[in-house]
Amino acid sequence: MTAGHGGHPQDPVAIVGAGLAGTLLAILLAERGLRVEVYERRADPRTGPAGEGRSVNLGVSARGIRALRRIGLWTSLSDLTVPMRGRVVHRPGGARLFQPYGRDPQEILHSIRRNELNARLVERAAAHPGIGLFFGARCVGLDPDQGLLSVTEAGLTRRVRASFVVGADGAFSTVRRLVQHGRPVDYRQEFLAWGYKELTIPPGAGGRSRVPPQALNLWPARQGLIVAHPNVDASHTATLFLPHRGEPGFTTLAGNETVTAFFTERFPGFAAIVPDLTEQYASRPVGHLVTVGTSAWHHRDRVVLVGDAAHAVYPFYGQGMNSSLEDCLVLDECLDRHPRDRAAAFADYQRRRKPHTDVLAALSAENFAELRDGTRSPLRLARSRIDHALHRLFPAAWAPLHTMVSHTTLPYGEALRRARHQDRMLRWAGATAVTAALTAAAVRGARKPPC
Amino acid sequence: MTAGHGGHPQDPVAIVGAGLAGTLLAILLAERGLRVEVYERRADPRTGPAGEGRSVNLGVSARGIRALRRIGLWTSLSDLTVPMRGRVVHRPGGARLFQPYGRDPQEILHSIRRNELNARLVERAAAHPGIGLFFGARCVGLDPDQGLLSVTEAGLTRRVRASFVVGADGAFSTVRRLVQHGRPVDYRQEFLAWGYKELTIPPGAGGRSRVPPQALNLWPARQGLIVAHPNVDASHTATLFLPHRGEPGFTTLAGNETVTAFFTERFPGFAAIVPDLTEQYASRPVGHLVTVGTSAWHHRDRVVLVGDAAHAVYPFYGQGMNSSLEDCLVLDECLDRHPRDRAAAFADYQRRRKPHTDVLAALSAENFAELRDGTRSPLRLARSRIDHALHRLFPAAWAPLHTMVSHTTLPYGEALRRARHQDRMLRWAGATAVTAALTAAAVRGARKPPC
Repeated sequence: MTAGHGGHPQDPVAIVGAGLAGTLLAILLAERGLRVEVYERRADPRTGPAGEGRSVNLGVSARGIRALRRIGLWTSLSDLTVPMRGRVVHRPGGARLFQPYGRDPQEILHSIRRNELNARLVERAAAHPGIGLFFGARCVGLDPDQGLLSVTEAGLTRRVRASFVVGADGAFSTVRRLVQHGRPVDYRQEFLAWGYKELTIPPGAGGRSRVPPQALNLWPARQGLIVAHPNVDASHTATLFLPHRGEPGFTTLAGNETVTAFFTERFPGFAAIVPDLTEQYASRPVGHLVTVGTSAWHHRDRVVLVGDAAHAVYPFYGQGMNSSLEDCLVLDECLDRHPRDRAAAFADYQRRRKPHTDVLAALSAENFAELRDGTRSPLRLARSRIDHALHRLFPAAWAPLHTMVSHTTLPYGEALRRARHQDRMLRWAGATAVTAALTAAAVRGARKPPC
Repeated sequence: MTAGHGGHPQDPVAIVGAGLAGTLLAILLAERGLRVEVYERRADPRTGPAGEGRSVNLGVSARGIRALRRIGLWTSLSDLTVPMRGRVVHRPGGARLFQPYGRDPQEILHSIRRNELNARLVERAAAHPGIGLFFGARCVGLDPDQGLLSVTEAGLTRRVRASFVVGADGAFSTVRRLVQHGRPVDYRQEFLAWGYKELTIPPGAGGRSRVPPQALNLWPARQGLIVAHPNVDASHTATLFLPHRGEPGFTTLAGNETVTAFFTERFPGFAAIVPDLTEQYASRPVGHLVTVGTSAWHHRDRVVLVGDAAHAVYPFYGQGMNSSLEDCLVLDECLDRHPRDRAAAFADYQRRRKPHTDVLAALSAENFAELRDGTRSPLRLARSRIDHALHRLFPAAWAPLHTMVSHTTLPYGEALRRARHQDRMLRWAGATAVTAALTAAAVRGARKPPC
């Protein structure tokens, strides 16, 4: 339980945060033969309640699957996951529109409760002889030049000398803050004007799902949105997205009558599937949504950031967790590439990874705008149909952006580059078609006999 | 020396930072009948050395003059200021090009040492019976909801209960950091890839200035820039701007021979006017340049930010100090406007002020690009001449952007709006001229006899 006190190579790696990225990275590093200690301020997810205020449901897609396969955990999670084959859009009149994620049966998402995935990762890490896990242990200080961590546990603060420190402590990372303090680091954090609240759709009669089960259910509305992930027990975890301010917004929407009237007007049919809706609304906290960017993904060879600590994004592309797990793989590859120079490995990791998570941050913000405005415009819908048709015809050469982001492990920036190239080709094809039509019209015109 | 201990209206206002904005605001608030306490972590500028690593020279322009006049201090500063009537650009060959700031004798800047201006402001504040000044007193904690400040002075920490707290503690504001902690605040800090180093051009023979005295002297170079402000003792304070990294950059440029060769190549003639150049270069620290933006200029009615704490900008428009002093006037006006609702006054202050300092931040970054690229392009120079000519013809209706920024107190955003309008008019005039020329050519063409 004690840590070394010299700057020796046998000092353990100290990971701050036993969330999804922290535990995955612990396992990857331990597999490299490193001794790893993980410090987590919250309780052990194997015994404790779900994480405070974090989104409790996730959609695992290709990148997350690849990372979980890498440690041989993916297939053993099948008892916790529910496939989502597409999205079901609930129209105000009660109509349901099903939009499959793809034609390929592989092109699906897998709904899982964050806490359950986290518990399995912790379980796997705890079973590794090279990993020590410390819960209820808060990082309160860091000397980034020395890799010296201060950790408070049960009221006592001790120092941990680490060969290097990993900040896997989320969007409001303490490690990041302590590394940045007094150093010339570019940093930005941007909160969305909308927040979220988790609501539960319980199973219906006979333990059956009250909404289509193998799908992401979506209730778009004017200035509001509900998204629901299926759970293995036939319940669904719904997330209500609303502006914080304005009428109605989370800061003003309160009182059972007002809340009932709000749901009846904005989300007709939703109250019917959540019997205790007003109680749930009153008791659940409102979460904030933040994008975080920093120029300091690492400090020399002593500190490195992964996951939300390095690049928190809005959740609207469903890639927060997937990209965080992918970070760990990229970092692991970079350690391979520079076996004797950890500073170079960390710098390489930032160079290879940051441009792509920057793209993800932008795409996630754009996707919010699309979701906020409810259903897609006819133009975008037509474009989406063309994209999917071309994808069916030329699966290797053509893919819609969301397919490349969710169902491949193509780096995000590369996915965007290809999508833009496809856009240009379609515009050119469109211009050619228009030109052809105009030429044809002109030819027809020319054939007309002169007055 | 003690502070109140209840949440009473007679609790003092606590200002963190006795820099330019902090002291000016202290005087303005004390003049409103408020009791003010100012806590400054550094030593008293009346007795201590110049501020650590801050730019020691300033150019006071219209906004700063207006603010200093407001407390009746401006005219008494004449023994400390040197007028700058324009800029002198030193060409590599030794030629000097003088560019006046304006034709109007009012359109000049006033060079002053930061520390001397600060000392006069502190002197004035100290003389006010409503103001208590505490030097060597560091803000280490803040409860923004309660207006409860923790201050460490000579190793002892005490709590100060304030009616409200002002963060006037600069670009790396502790008050701002403590207000933001755990709150959904949009924030960004962005460091320039270039840093700076202060160098002193001593007076020449007979106590005369070694470069044109009543001007800002400027040595543009490839990937480098020196700007020098005149002092009352005929010395000049020069600021060398260079990239941190790269060849040469501050991180690599070292050693007397290398430094001498560098100045000889990039800034010919400069070494001749600074006899101890290599010693100065080796002993002076390198400063960082940062832009800071935050969405939380205030917290309810308890905390408010002014100056660099609210909006640090790059120094390339010479408006950092001027805008900080102007902040205090705007805040003072907003307190007038909402005499019974301080939260409304603070919100109004942010609403009226932030859009303009955002514009200033953008203009300051743009001006860096122009200065970095050395002299102006022929197109910009021509444009500048047209601007000045129109300003002479229609002084009330037309003014170059830099004139509006430096020599008027027009809000920055309004200055930019007018400059863009002027741009559109010139483009329209240009298009009209081209159209006229083409029409004339067509008419000439039409006159030609057929074949």
